[in-house]
Amino acid sequence: MQLILNKIVEFIRTYMKDKTLILNLLFLLIFHFVAQSQTTPQVESKIDSILSLLTLEEKVAMVHAQSKFSSPGVPRLGIPELWMSDGPHGVRGEINWDNWGYANWTNDSITAFPALTCLAATFNPDLSYQYGVALGEEARYRKKDVLLGPGVNIYRTPMNGRNFEYMGEDPYLASVMSVPYIKGVQKNGVAACIKHYVLNNQELWRDHINVEISDRALNEIYLPAFKAAVIEGGSWTLMGAYNKFRGQHCCHHEILLNSILKEDWNFDGVVITDWGGAHDTKESALYGLDLEMGTGTDGLTTNTKNAYDNYYLANPFLKLLQEGEVEEAIVDDKVKRLLRLMFRTSLNPNRRLGRMNNQEHLDVAQKVGGEGIVLLKNEDNFFPISPETTQTIAVIGENATRMMTIGGGSSELKAKKEVSPLEGIRKKFKNAKILHTMGYASGPALYARTEPSPYNADSLKIKAIEMVKKADLVLFIGGLNKNHHQDCEGGDRLSYNLPFGQDDLLKEIIAFNKNVGIVLISGNAVAMPWIEDIKGLMQAWYLGSQAGNALADIISGDLNPSGKLPFSFPKKLTDNSAHYYGEISYPGDSINQEYKEDILVGYRWHDTKAIEPMFPFGFGLSYTDFSLSNIETDKKFYNASDKLTVNITVTNEGDLEGADVVQVYVGKPNSIVGRAMKELKGFQKVFLRKGESRQISIDININTLKYYDEISSEWVLEKGDYYVYVGNSSDNISRRIKIKVD
Amino acid sequence: MQLILNKIVEFIRTYMKDKTLILNLLFLLIFHFVAQSQTTPQVESKIDSILSLLTLEEKVAMVHAQSKFSSPGVPRLGIPELWMSDGPHGVRGEINWDNWGYANWTNDSITAFPALTCLAATFNPDLSYQYGVALGEEARYRKKDVLLGPGVNIYRTPMNGRNFEYMGEDPYLASVMSVPYIKGVQKNGVAACIKHYVLNNQELWRDHINVEISDRALNEIYLPAFKAAVIEGGSWTLMGAYNKFRGQHCCHHEILLNSILKEDWNFDGVVITDWGGAHDTKESALYGLDLEMGTGTDGLTTNTKNAYDNYYLANPFLKLLQEGEVEEAIVDDKVKRLLRLMFRTSLNPNRRLGRMNNQEHLDVAQKVGGEGIVLLKNEDNFFPISPETTQTIAVIGENATRMMTIGGGSSELKAKKEVSPLEGIRKKFKNAKILHTMGYASGPALYARTEPSPYNADSLKIKAIEMVKKADLVLFIGGLNKNHHQDCEGGDRLSYNLPFGQDDLLKEIIAFNKNVGIVLISGNAVAMPWIEDIKGLMQAWYLGSQAGNALADIISGDLNPSGKLPFSFPKKLTDNSAHYYGEISYPGDSINQEYKEDILVGYRWHDTKAIEPMFPFGFGLSYTDFSLSNIETDKKFYNASDKLTVNITVTNEGDLEGADVVQVYVGKPNSIVGRAMKELKGFQKVFLRKGESRQISIDININTLKYYDEISSEWVLEKGDYYVYVGNSSDNISRRIKIKVD
Repeated sequence: MQLILNKIVEFIRTYMKDKTLILNLLFLLIFHFVAQSQTTPQVESKIDSILSLLTLEEKVAMVHAQSKFSSPGVPRLGIPELWMSDGPHGVRGEINWDNWGYANWTNDSITAFPALTCLAATFNPDLSYQYGVALGEEARYRKKDVLLGPGVNIYRTPMNGRNFEYMGEDPYLASVMSVPYIKGVQKNGVAACIKHYVLNNQELWRDHINVEISDRALNEIYLPAFKAAVIEGGSWTLMGAYNKFRGQHCCHHEILLNSILKEDWNFDGVVITDWGGAHDTKESALYGLDLEMGTGTDGLTTNTKNAYDNYYLANPFLKLLQEGEVEEAIVDDKVKRLLRLMFRTSLNPNRRLGRMNNQEHLDVAQKVGGEGIVLLKNEDNFFPISPETTQTIAVIGENATRMMTIGGGSSELKAKKEVSPLEGIRKKFKNAKILHTMGYASGPALYARTEPSPYNADSLKIKAIEMVKKADLVLFIGGLNKNHHQDCEGGDRLSYNLPFGQDDLLKEIIAFNKNVGIVLISGNAVAMPWIEDIKGLMQAWYLGSQAGNALADIISGDLNPSGKLPFSFPKKLTDNSAHYYGEISYPGDSINQEYKEDILVGYRWHDTKAIEPMFPFGFGLSYTDFSLSNIETDKKFYNASDKLTVNITVTNEGDLEGADVVQVYVGKPNSIVGRAMKELKGFQKVFLRKGESRQISIDININTLKYYDEISSEWVLEKGDYYVYVGNSSDNISRRIKIKVD
Repeated sequence: MQLILNKIVEFIRTYMKDKTLILNLLFLLIFHFVAQSQTTPQVESKIDSILSLLTLEEKVAMVHAQSKFSSPGVPRLGIPELWMSDGPHGVRGEINWDNWGYANWTNDSITAFPALTCLAATFNPDLSYQYGVALGEEARYRKKDVLLGPGVNIYRTPMNGRNFEYMGEDPYLASVMSVPYIKGVQKNGVAACIKHYVLNNQELWRDHINVEISDRALNEIYLPAFKAAVIEGGSWTLMGAYNKFRGQHCCHHEILLNSILKEDWNFDGVVITDWGGAHDTKESALYGLDLEMGTGTDGLTTNTKNAYDNYYLANPFLKLLQEGEVEEAIVDDKVKRLLRLMFRTSLNPNRRLGRMNNQEHLDVAQKVGGEGIVLLKNEDNFFPISPETTQTIAVIGENATRMMTIGGGSSELKAKKEVSPLEGIRKKFKNAKILHTMGYASGPALYARTEPSPYNADSLKIKAIEMVKKADLVLFIGGLNKNHHQDCEGGDRLSYNLPFGQDDLLKEIIAFNKNVGIVLISGNAVAMPWIEDIKGLMQAWYLGSQAGNALADIISGDLNPSGKLPFSFPKKLTDNSAHYYGEISYPGDSINQEYKEDILVGYRWHDTKAIEPMFPFGFGLSYTDFSLSNIETDKKFYNASDKLTVNITVTNEGDLEGADVVQVYVGKPNSIVGRAMKELKGFQKVFLRKGESRQISIDININTLKYYDEISSEWVLEKGDYYVYVGNSSDNISRRIKIKVD
């Protein structure tokens, strides 16, 4: 360190003849340390001194939108505007100032990254960090201060139209995967925005449905990912949910925002509405909302300064403040949070330059896609298909060519390129004869129930069957798409079955060719009436710009699949816990709904109720075989403050390099409260060369075994026996170890 | 200095426990010195290394527009886009991506500063610097990298529709006033863009008119302000003119851009076309153009990526490069200039934050307006009118209320506020009875010749006369406006007389009230058939946001007028040198024109040909009286390398504080070449309290007395006698001193 100091001093001496340089340097030093210590007293006192310069009108202006995706600064003082963009999977195209039309700019084509279900399926936090860094770089290049993502709403039902934007059904997985994403984005001086807080677990009636749920399920299942995003990820902003919880809208919610987020979790960032999520001025003022963004204005949509003046946090808020109905300290707190956000983003002189559409970003997109694809079935080693094959492959299905970055709602992207599955396959299998026909076409969403759509009984199917007859093997690339009532914001699915007559089509295909592999493009589980009759099945998500390349890597075996399901695939819809209790539980009566399954979401339900899923949480095959051995805990008895370490030897028994995800679940038998049989508490993705063996350790803090006690409103550690389950899927446990906690 | 160093060392010692801090500091130090030394080898080598990473396509993309006001960077490398804005007088409102419509954003209302004729009339370089700083701050807040101004085309004829955007008829004045403006703007890390280079001295046929002019007039009259802007001001960009010079378009001109600008003046910045000013790919490639911006595309105006692909410096340029018709070094040079510009603007980590619509900017606007208004006539001390007056004042004229930030072409502004003259007068004269009627209305431009417009002979005039009869005094606030064929880009004026029947109206007003003062709002001289019959006359320009306040300050005497005319007001149009020689000289035959007056532009013509102007260059009255005495040169004999110093005692003889502009002209009697009788070589604005006397010195380098020799193409200092003229107007010389140069 002395050496560094000497070098600096020498450097300064050399240049000290120039007084301006030295003065600039001093200025920079000060600026630097202010910028570095972003939550230190220096910045806070800067914020206070700025606040003292603002008029009440300027403060109120800052807490609501000035356009679809920006809020104003204070021009006279050089306080910048705040620019936001949709985009958990990429930075959205530019939208018009004052309506939802695209602005038709030509500089906003970006890299589309795989949807978050895919990222979660990688079970690889390092990849999530790379994803965040790359995405943040694109947002920074596009001059955005806030990127509206990631989404961590829990996958409660496969009918939720927006599941594809989230991280699956397990709170621990969603936590572990969202934290590095946030850190990666924010490394660029771009704020992440964890969303949608909370219980926005369906799109149907999302604007008004009131969710009733136990404190325990709220705290154990639905809040943890948000808590991790705030406390561990340090997310600088958070977006409220559209729905109500216990009668109050989540965007201005006394318990959720004031008590839990801002008091318990010490969140010092900005709470942003979902667009149009505010419904009351006084609640918005008092119950934790900091920035009101919106869809509706007062009906004046263009060419007026005043289109946003009737927002709840605009003139109506100003009036309350002027009349003394609301104290100025209330708006001051919101403005301070906004200023703090600026010191972290636009006012941070050290923030990096962004970049966009570079090869590195495409590589991240392809890597996430490749590691996220889940191999679900592989009879007779249907996959991989050698890239040297000269066979005739019939690629059937609309999703072989459909652009999946289009549609889906606010996560829609304007991708600079999107390699379709067919394109990726054609490129990879240069010697094969690749045939393609759609086989079905997605009709209007109205026809998308289980009945065949009017498009199906026609020539498309006939052509597909003819093609299938000529082929050595069939790759059916279907699933859902991003239309309304599929995987799309603003509506839920209408059926658990595949839409557009795909089940019927598959039945016929299978009748003419026994060599069928299916690639499901979706962000949700689907019914699989054909599962016994096909040889291969891959869950391939929405993969973004490199979709076809990532898929071809896996199909060809250039990359060994290592993705694991981040949510369970029930055999039928009523096997899912949200649907088990009928309409009051999902979708509710349009006014209220009750999460009657309580904490038993996803695999917790299947495990505990012994309802076998089609494919379980954490499941995913490989082209090689892994074994887990020497599974031991470091001790048998633990105290509350202890860390439990599980040691495992993982061996790649096969002939290919690959990766497996070792999963550690813990359960409490004979608990004094109702518990799931087991809960995920740790995991590690292990990459092994063929034949390689490695010992790994997975740590679990004993205090993470607590349950949330509704009487005391505290987390309680129950003493006694626990089971530690170690495996590579929630249904494939290699060893169960009993430990004791005291 | 040792003290500062010790403080730094102490500071570092305190923090050195934190290794990250120290490392960041080192990084910052390096970054800092790279950024500081913006034209040093470090930056140049950075530019070279970036260049080596670029593909040919990326290079070509950088040298032409991607939208109306932006050019692309290289997203994959994080090289930013370049964002430009019109606005010598303020940052223009946001324009649509791909057409000229306004984008209807609500965050782009700005401070409108007085037009550049007004700034020139202040004869105050300090104010020009303040103007530049303030304007640059607004551009910075609006996230612009390049501000398209200032304009320094020489005022050759009062018919030029765009004179209001320029700095008058004298190359020395335009030079001295533009340099601090540029430095002020660029202090903010925003590039100025000196324009329009060169000879764009009329709007009629501007796209194609070919100007023939002597080398001498080019070098002595039309180039100096550009030369000063580049060499002294350090302008980072320059805009080419629309017109031709000697048969070649100025936006890609071998002599003007390659030989003069880039070789002789060592310009290392970016040459930008005027919008649509390029006409040939090979010439654009080879003759000095660096960035092609435009109005037209290939007919595809929206929703297409390829709208700009047919630009001369787009695909056609790429083709020439790929075919080897043009060497890659040619595009490399352009890209290096663009990268250099970025290191000066968007890639300069030390650039300041901007601000907008603050009181300081309004104050600058008001100060420039107040100091720029020129008092031309003041019989019976018509002005000032006491703010305590209780008289009835009839304010007649459309310009009393017309928004003058609207119209005029590309300099049109969306002002956050614009105080009209009437509003300013009402506010200042609270005890007076203020009446107002328009008196005339500006009809369509077609009717704007000397004939009365159909709007004039109507009730407006009758109402005005009735009002005038009732008034103690009349303030006629008329002049030109920003409509087509007035003071407006894209067309020249159709008549030297006031339009819209104002001359007739004034004749009638004067018949009914002898107490008439006129406030002329214009950027050009006009005929004054009524000049003998009125008492007061002010030239009040286009004054921007604070127009009415600045005007009321002057009318009321709260501010003593100190503006001086930056161009001559001829009595009739043919007294102007551009018009003296008939249509071949102005406006030409639509193909060619010849500047037959050669170097005798403005007062040079009036002086030399003894044609008395209505009001001369440099003229402007005050409410107080100044005298110049003890006028001496420091020596009588000078060498070429000498500096001549003129010492003058300036005395405020009156009862009010005020300012006068001492002007030093030099002439060469009996020159071997044709010369103007005298040329402005120095000036100083002197602020004096009542009764105060001060000695000032004005320095003139003897080498600025050179003429441009057409045979040798060199500047030549002629030996022999010179006259030094000292006065406070070009026609009010207090003393002429003979000196000798050897």
